[in-house]
Amino acid sequence: MVLSFLSLGRLPEIRAGDDLAGSIAEAAPPDLSGDDVIAVAHKVVSKAEGRTVRLAEVRPGTRARALAAELGKDPRVVEVVLADCTELVRAERGVLICRTRHGLVCANAGVDASNAAAADEVVLLPLDPDASARRLRTGVAAACGVAPAILVTDSFGRAWRVGQADVAIGAAGLVALDDWRGRAGARGRELRATAIAAADAAAAAADLARGKDSHEPAVLVRGLERLVTRDDGPGAAALRRPPEEDLFR
Amino acid sequence: MVLSFLSLGRLPEIRAGDDLAGSIAEAAPPDLSGDDVIAVAHKVVSKAEGRTVRLAEVRPGTRARALAAELGKDPRVVEVVLADCTELVRAERGVLICRTRHGLVCANAGVDASNAAAADEVVLLPLDPDASARRLRTGVAAACGVAPAILVTDSFGRAWRVGQADVAIGAAGLVALDDWRGRAGARGRELRATAIAAADAAAAAADLARGKDSHEPAVLVRGLERLVTRDDGPGAAALRRPPEEDLFR
Repeated sequence: MVLSFLSLGRLPEIRAGDDLAGSIAEAAPPDLSGDDVIAVAHKVVSKAEGRTVRLAEVRPGTRARALAAELGKDPRVVEVVLADCTELVRAERGVLICRTRHGLVCANAGVDASNAAAADEVVLLPLDPDASARRLRTGVAAACGVAPAILVTDSFGRAWRVGQADVAIGAAGLVALDDWRGRAGARGRELRATAIAAADAAAAAADLARGKDSHEPAVLVRGLERLVTRDDGPGAAALRRPPEEDLFR
Repeated sequence: MVLSFLSLGRLPEIRAGDDLAGSIAEAAPPDLSGDDVIAVAHKVVSKAEGRTVRLAEVRPGTRARALAAELGKDPRVVEVVLADCTELVRAERGVLICRTRHGLVCANAGVDASNAAAADEVVLLPLDPDASARRLRTGVAAACGVAPAILVTDSFGRAWRVGQADVAIGAAGLVALDDWRGRAGARGRELRATAIAAADAAAAAADLARGKDSHEPAVLVRGLERLVTRDDGPGAAALRRPPEEDLFR
């Protein structure tokens, strides 16, 4: 079995309302199949959905100003972060670790100032990344006649490891969590704690297949057909640990 | 650029003192190159290095017995875990999150009862996984005449995400952390926090390329030649966040 990751190359600059699914379909190879997976960096998804904010239009409130002063951040960015955040998990040493409205735990609620179209613009996470993935899947299917699974990805830091790795914040048509619990191990012993975050693993490697300094948001992933489903399924929500199971609040 | 992952298939059962590098070299394709990477599941590395413990020979101490009772675990396993552990980060709800002697933060200090050769045997992490990777690289080079980079991997849980993903606990000849900080982004804007945990991303996807219930510890990774170095380099140590930067102790 070979697993492969191929960047679909540079897509045109995406703006609010643009047909991102159409752009992806155009960039996809002619032999695109319903067994394939396409991993899409969330920034173009967010931009197409209009999930950007101009900082000039943000009025930071009292809490944002206080936190910004404490952490050495732009109070307008902190205001935008707080608006997308249901809980501050940590706010220290210049870092804001947030639980987002989606239940994701990440720095700055995923709000990102890099790769925005304008210098004073920040890009937010999609409102519902699983729904974004489903819409992209439908759109690609309409354009190509085949419905590859879709991942919407973002780069997350890790609590105890240096550097970032992409994870799947949205998914449609891929079993995000490949759950082997209860199945027998190689020697017949039960695998007691083996549930593989397959969508995150695919997202992480997809990020290696594109140049970080070029506009290559979409990566074709082949070899995961055993995890591709006709139904869109529960999406990447399956990978979000519920707050009540969080040992690190 | 295509990134690909190919399982090298079933290796013979590995026992203490066995020539794992020789087995990997034999399983590798004839066109193996010094631009390639081979990701190896740590369990076979640990077994070859004799890093296994028979539970019948373990005498749990007072602390291990108390923790085991509290968490519903085998006191002998807890004794083995504590011996490899410099700090208990969390011990609750049946879970032991440890900082290991290597500075890795993971469940049970990486001590694993699944896939051991005997029912009462547990497999520990290698004493120095970067050194293990270097030795394997030297051994494969001796057998094949080319020195692919080597990753030693383990499956880690994540604080806020469900499921496990493989990470690189050891590395030789691969730039584990692809650090773009300070380089210009696509629009000339500085990427302020982009250091990609490339070795972890490769480890995670390598795990998708092999069947979890079969003996396929080694996966050939192609397409990362830009990160492969002639020198063994700093290894996966570059990915361990120092305790003083840990916000979640």
